[in-house]
Amino acid sequence: MQLPDRDSLQAHLSAHIAPARALGLELVGIDPVTIAAPLGPNVNDKGTAFAGSLFSAAALAGWLQLTQWCAARTLEAQIVLQKADAQFLAPARAPFRAIARESSAQERERLAVLLARRGRGRIALAVEVSCEATLVMRLAAVYAVTLSTALTPGSAGR
Amino acid sequence: MQLPDRDSLQAHLSAHIAPARALGLELVGIDPVTIAAPLGPNVNDKGTAFAGSLFSAAALAGWLQLTQWCAARTLEAQIVLQKADAQFLAPARAPFRAIARESSAQERERLAVLLARRGRGRIALAVEVSCEATLVMRLAAVYAVTLSTALTPGSAGR
Repeated sequence: MQLPDRDSLQAHLSAHIAPARALGLELVGIDPVTIAAPLGPNVNDKGTAFAGSLFSAAALAGWLQLTQWCAARTLEAQIVLQKADAQFLAPARAPFRAIARESSAQERERLAVLLARRGRGRIALAVEVSCEATLVMRLAAVYAVTLSTALTPGSAGR
Repeated sequence: MQLPDRDSLQAHLSAHIAPARALGLELVGIDPVTIAAPLGPNVNDKGTAFAGSLFSAAALAGWLQLTQWCAARTLEAQIVLQKADAQFLAPARAPFRAIARESSAQERERLAVLLARRGRGRIALAVEVSCEATLVMRLAAVYAVTLSTALTPGSAGR
């Protein structure tokens, strides 16, 4: 199976995730997954990036990181954000980017075992958002991963 | 001092917070602060609302609730989101709304004392996002409030 490349993932985002398009979120790297965003469509009344936009870039980066991980294992799965702790550390006054940090090998192995056994599992993942040289936000996220074969009708998540 | 009404607050959002405009976030109530959002500009590839959009509506509702609280006390302050724990409980397959819950009287009193003493303080606030009759997201947020007189140049936050 061929892994989706940056261009096809970016085309998917633009075509199917409306807020990614509206906020100008762009996939600029896949190893690690990096989402870049301009300030313009994300600016708030203080001339800095809106907290919701920083969160959106981070949540998308984490989701794509796991999408890539599943694709590399030929797993067709639905991945949804279940829990996220965000810390806003500094204002972003310029374009910003979210970089997903790969989960630990132990976390990934645990998820692989859960998926093989039960068709579903959860995994923690960290994402960092920076603006120029400053770390502006840190996200600790937990995603739920469900194999498509284990999905019941009507259970589609975020 | 006259409290800002819904129309003037909504005009402020549309004019100065670009993502609020792009995501169609609309202030539909101010007591408690309620932000409504259509599904269309917030939809993801699963046909449900993107997690980042639910977060954006919630973060904005909390921010406006505190903006109202400051205005009622004739406090000119900058309010920025500092920390937020989000739980995504169910998918939103239709328009959704975020309702800010007022902080406890004790929390508000504590913030008032801190602002009077030091010109700055923090306050916790909960926001709930619902879609039709289902609670889809719960946000526990902490905002930093700084009186304009206590702001140093270049300290403007999110």
